Amino acid sequence: MRKGDRIATLGWNQHRHLEAYFAIPSIGAVLHTCNLRLPPAHLAHIINHAEDRIVLVDADLVPLVESVAPELRTVERYVVMSDGREVPPTTLPHAASYEALVGAAEPLRRWPELDEWDPAGMCFSSATTGLPKGVTYTHRAMWLHSLVWGLADTVGVSERDTTLIVVPMFHANAWGTPFTGVWMGSTLVLPGPRPDAKVFCELIQDERVTLAAGVPTVWMAVLALLETASYDLSSLDRIVCGGSAPPRALIEAVEKRLGARFIHAYGMTEATPLTHICVMKSHMAGWPEDRRYAVKTRQGLLNPGLEMRVVGRDGAEVPWDGATMGEVWLRGPWIASEYYRDPRSAETFKDGWYRSGDVATVDADGYMGIVDRVKDVIKSGGEWISSVGLENTIMAHPAVAEAAVVGVEHPKWQERPLACVVPKPGKAVTKDEILSHLRGKFAAWWLPDDVVFIDEVPKTSVGKFDKKVLRERFAAHLLKQAVP
Amino acid sequence: MRKGDRIATLGWNQHRHLEAYFAIPSIGAVLHTCNLRLPPAHLAHIINHAEDRIVLVDADLVPLVESVAPELRTVERYVVMSDGREVPPTTLPHAASYEALVGAAEPLRRWPELDEWDPAGMCFSSATTGLPKGVTYTHRAMWLHSLVWGLADTVGVSERDTTLIVVPMFHANAWGTPFTGVWMGSTLVLPGPRPDAKVFCELIQDERVTLAAGVPTVWMAVLALLETASYDLSSLDRIVCGGSAPPRALIEAVEKRLGARFIHAYGMTEATPLTHICVMKSHMAGWPEDRRYAVKTRQGLLNPGLEMRVVGRDGAEVPWDGATMGEVWLRGPWIASEYYRDPRSAETFKDGWYRSGDVATVDADGYMGIVDRVKDVIKSGGEWISSVGLENTIMAHPAVAEAAVVGVEHPKWQERPLACVVPKPGKAVTKDEILSHLRGKFAAWWLPDDVVFIDEVPKTSVGKFDKKVLRERFAAHLLKQAVP
Repeated sequence: MRKGDRIATLGWNQHRHLEAYFAIPSIGAVLHTCNLRLPPAHLAHIINHAEDRIVLVDADLVPLVESVAPELRTVERYVVMSDGREVPPTTLPHAASYEALVGAAEPLRRWPELDEWDPAGMCFSSATTGLPKGVTYTHRAMWLHSLVWGLADTVGVSERDTTLIVVPMFHANAWGTPFTGVWMGSTLVLPGPRPDAKVFCELIQDERVTLAAGVPTVWMAVLALLETASYDLSSLDRIVCGGSAPPRALIEAVEKRLGARFIHAYGMTEATPLTHICVMKSHMAGWPEDRRYAVKTRQGLLNPGLEMRVVGRDGAEVPWDGATMGEVWLRGPWIASEYYRDPRSAETFKDGWYRSGDVATVDADGYMGIVDRVKDVIKSGGEWISSVGLENTIMAHPAVAEAAVVGVEHPKWQERPLACVVPKPGKAVTKDEILSHLRGKFAAWWLPDDVVFIDEVPKTSVGKFDKKVLRERFAAHLLKQAVP
Repeated sequence: MRKGDRIATLGWNQHRHLEAYFAIPSIGAVLHTCNLRLPPAHLAHIINHAEDRIVLVDADLVPLVESVAPELRTVERYVVMSDGREVPPTTLPHAASYEALVGAAEPLRRWPELDEWDPAGMCFSSATTGLPKGVTYTHRAMWLHSLVWGLADTVGVSERDTTLIVVPMFHANAWGTPFTGVWMGSTLVLPGPRPDAKVFCELIQDERVTLAAGVPTVWMAVLALLETASYDLSSLDRIVCGGSAPPRALIEAVEKRLGARFIHAYGMTEATPLTHICVMKSHMAGWPEDRRYAVKTRQGLLNPGLEMRVVGRDGAEVPWDGATMGEVWLRGPWIASEYYRDPRSAETFKDGWYRSGDVATVDADGYMGIVDRVKDVIKSGGEWISSVGLENTIMAHPAVAEAAVVGVEHPKWQERPLACVVPKPGKAVTKDEILSHLRGKFAAWWLPDDVVFIDEVPKTSVGKFDKKVLRERFAAHLLKQAVP
């Protein structure tokens, strides 16, 4: 390997993957963790685009790699990470055993001297449309990101911690947990292939885990399991949760039923990945529970070392009033400045700022809360209306299964909200019932101009609401109404 | 002011000094904190050598500055930091009032964009011999040093903390406490001019201080005061203590009588200043008290982000066995690489490493413990003998007031230890009593070849033992014995 060469990994949270996390950057190569949940065409694309020379692959993921191998143009060698020194039967060309290679290798006499600006890692984010976009991380970015996780006022990763890494190591550096954990001396617990809630509960119990990091659905599954099974999870001191917005009920259940502090975190592939953390300030200690949980549902405070602008439609920073919406812009030592060899960089990185595409408000204490995506927010006259806020409230109606709110063209207001509602099977609900359910909870001008009933909300390949389809389908809906 | 210009401060721990700590680096100038305890000739030297253009001075320190002003070649303006907007009567030329200037100033429309490698601060260390040596600190060094103090496994400075800055702001950046404290959102308590133990106790009690940082003598004075006065110091969670080695009795008294965790820290002007911190590892929790306090007297673990070598006489790194001695070498993002325009740099900074001149051992857990200075350690054959270890034990003898152990020339062993002992008034003690007091506590070959009785140990201007004088006085002592 030469300095700067990319090495792909396709692996679960296992010890050989952890070795690769450190060995690859330490020899001056670039750790390219591939998301094994990508569609095969996207997986082939990212390996080709990164020009990976070697692929490290867990034994049980060999069939996945076999399925794309004929498309891979730059890979010279496949290294299978399994317990033995034999290569499992495979159609992969030039396959080798990880343990055989490690066993035969001479220890490095001298580590290369690397510059802090040299690339250390690489991830691709799954774009909503189009091919995944790649980001490289410098040693400097990884180093600083790791340090910030150790701060007493962020996650405070400590030598005293036993950390369960739930978030996959094939996704956004596992939020940096492997790097911070090793650096700070935390014991790491890696759950292995295809873990489920039962595995997590057993590991927390048996390894006396103090800190765990994972997405909301994991903790929902853990709480569901605890309804019927019993585990001693008393060692758990705090959990870090992000990736999607955790509902307040989850935050409350984690704190009250697991007795662990819930730390809401926010970030993205472009940011190594974490940028915000929701920890409470000391003056909030005496606040009523409702007010404290309202803070905890927000994405939180900007991490030390980063800069944020929340920019409204007029291009000016919005006031920190907890109500005015703007797009979140970020810059700092661990925020990317471009996509890897990708013309789409120009849309996202402008004037030194990364434009996240997320729409947020910031309250007077500095807690940022995401309310929508820029492409989904409804631009009504000079103002923005959060589609997410409306649809979450509509979905709380007992007769509603799903709801999406989209902005559609309006002759006077540019866009106005249209609610697309899927009633629960066997339930009936009317437009007036939906609107009166919303009334009083939002400003009057936020209320949808119309409600349509549909069979299903269209979904993207990863199961998110595909509002683009609805916007196209109902593009002329209000225009038609306006012209009798 | 132009970018890179130096601005001197002569100030106590007060709010205007804190403003200067941030305002000066933020406009691109260099904060040069002057140690007001330097001899006037040294004070004049450092201001001239730094070419300070402005001096900010506390009102009560104006006479000190007046005494050196005629020697100052580059100062254009003196700014007096006091409550009013009048300039107090002074012989200083071009004197102005800090508050009058601030009151008349326009807010900056735009902060300058600075490079992280630009200088932000400057300190001079008091050299044992010769003039003080200056060090500049980059923004990058200050930034990283500040971040590391926030780690859960170092001091863990937090928004929840109320920090009493005992260590003077005119000395080694007050250990970085103003920068970390403001960044992490800690409330800062600044004790003002000439504080004493009574002021510290009152402030801890009244402001509910949780964290305090100061040298061992401060805590000795606080403990002494508590023998006769009563304060509620129960808010105190931890104290950081360094500058000189705290005796075990002090560590124990702080933990047991104040109920605060004692955090031993180590560093130097050349390192911004902190490099080591003594926090306990989790596996030590069950250790017997004696063993835990033995760890706490060590200077501790290297801070994340730095590199250390402990290099023995043969130029190789010593084993981490808690016994083998070597000189502490350091490098990293907040370790200086030279003295400011000073030919003495070449003696101290070699091959990218800062050679601290301190001799230490490192135990198997990585805890570094200083045992001597390189110039004071006794080079006996191929081995080193710690003068400090021997003299501390001799001074524990009930008939001994002071003792210094120095290496003097020996025909066979290059150097051998000579004990210079000052008996307590009215007490008698013999050479044999001293040697048998040491026997069994040290390896036989560590024992001094002779004991001489003297009236007083010579001291340097800052009150430290001046062993150089003793080495010169007794240079031929053992040679004379060897030749009858």
